Amino acid sequence: MKKSLGPQTMAYPLPAWCVGSYDREGKPNAATIAWGGICCSKPPCITISLQEIRYTYSNIMERQAFTVNIPSAEYAAAVDYFGTASGRNVDKFQESGLTPIASDLVDAPYIKEFPVVLECQVIHTYKIGIHTQFIGEILDVKVEEDRLGEDGKPDITKIDPMIYSTKARTYYRVGELIGKAYFIGRHI
Amino acid sequence: MKKSLGPQTMAYPLPAWCVGSYDREGKPNAATIAWGGICCSKPPCITISLQEIRYTYSNIMERQAFTVNIPSAEYAAAVDYFGTASGRNVDKFQESGLTPIASDLVDAPYIKEFPVVLECQVIHTYKIGIHTQFIGEILDVKVEEDRLGEDGKPDITKIDPMIYSTKARTYYRVGELIGKAYFIGRHI
Repeated sequence: MKKSLGPQTMAYPLPAWCVGSYDREGKPNAATIAWGGICCSKPPCITISLQEIRYTYSNIMERQAFTVNIPSAEYAAAVDYFGTASGRNVDKFQESGLTPIASDLVDAPYIKEFPVVLECQVIHTYKIGIHTQFIGEILDVKVEEDRLGEDGKPDITKIDPMIYSTKARTYYRVGELIGKAYFIGRHI
Repeated sequence: MKKSLGPQTMAYPLPAWCVGSYDREGKPNAATIAWGGICCSKPPCITISLQEIRYTYSNIMERQAFTVNIPSAEYAAAVDYFGTASGRNVDKFQESGLTPIASDLVDAPYIKEFPVVLECQVIHTYKIGIHTQFIGEILDVKVEEDRLGEDGKPDITKIDPMIYSTKARTYYRVGELIGKAYFIGRHI
């Protein structure tokens, strides 16, 4: 029996991604978000949603670029910190000890220590209620070489990304393999 | 050292969600997607992206409503089937043995057996390249009572949702708890 919980933002899984941006003075910033996802295959695009109040909102509006940095679970404390502190008050890179690297493709920094980064150029912004969607065209995906599988593709178990569980406000790792897509449903 | 993999759709984690819709004749359909995410807190909204070619695209354009059904790993074969077969050719509910329930809030069916459903009214559509984003306002979230924790909130470990690993084309379960959000970063 299903229980009605009312209108609210709830879905599983949600990501924990860190958005890299520069402010007007060129100070690099990282902000953790869970509202976002891939939104188009051609051109490859990802969407992230931010409230106007957030420091990163102004940064991206100004620079029209951002990076999506996918953390490993080993960086969970920094990810959580990036989601609670504001770049308006502190230098989050300095405080966390992580390293900003200037993208050579877009006007935004990425996080050296994280295993995967998407370098994104804003192609649309779209206001919905209290959030604004930034649609970023993915100009490149960079992955740490030791996180690739033998087939040269990123290996999710080596990347060890974080899952955000909303409402409970907890982070989880990726667990066991269920099976192959485009395969396990073939007998239905 | 990071390796450049070029512009492509890659991010971790991605969801495996089944979108419920009715066609013109009222036949219920379910289609699996990985391109989507929460996009606004107020009003609570979720976005899903579909290509025009997909049967579900026409259904939602016509009815301006859809459901997002979050599966448990136990339904992985049906989820995979919903992502490969087309409602244009078959009755996917009939073939899979799952049960469509008419939402009483929106003009779309949801999947009885899945633990979580979001009932969504389309408030915007937005074309980006080959995909169209459907922004759905979440009018209600319904969760199976036995998937709630003792605090009355959905328990991600009981929901046991599926994670889609793109490129490798595999499904994973949620794994171990990393820690509490808004907490584990407090010492930075």
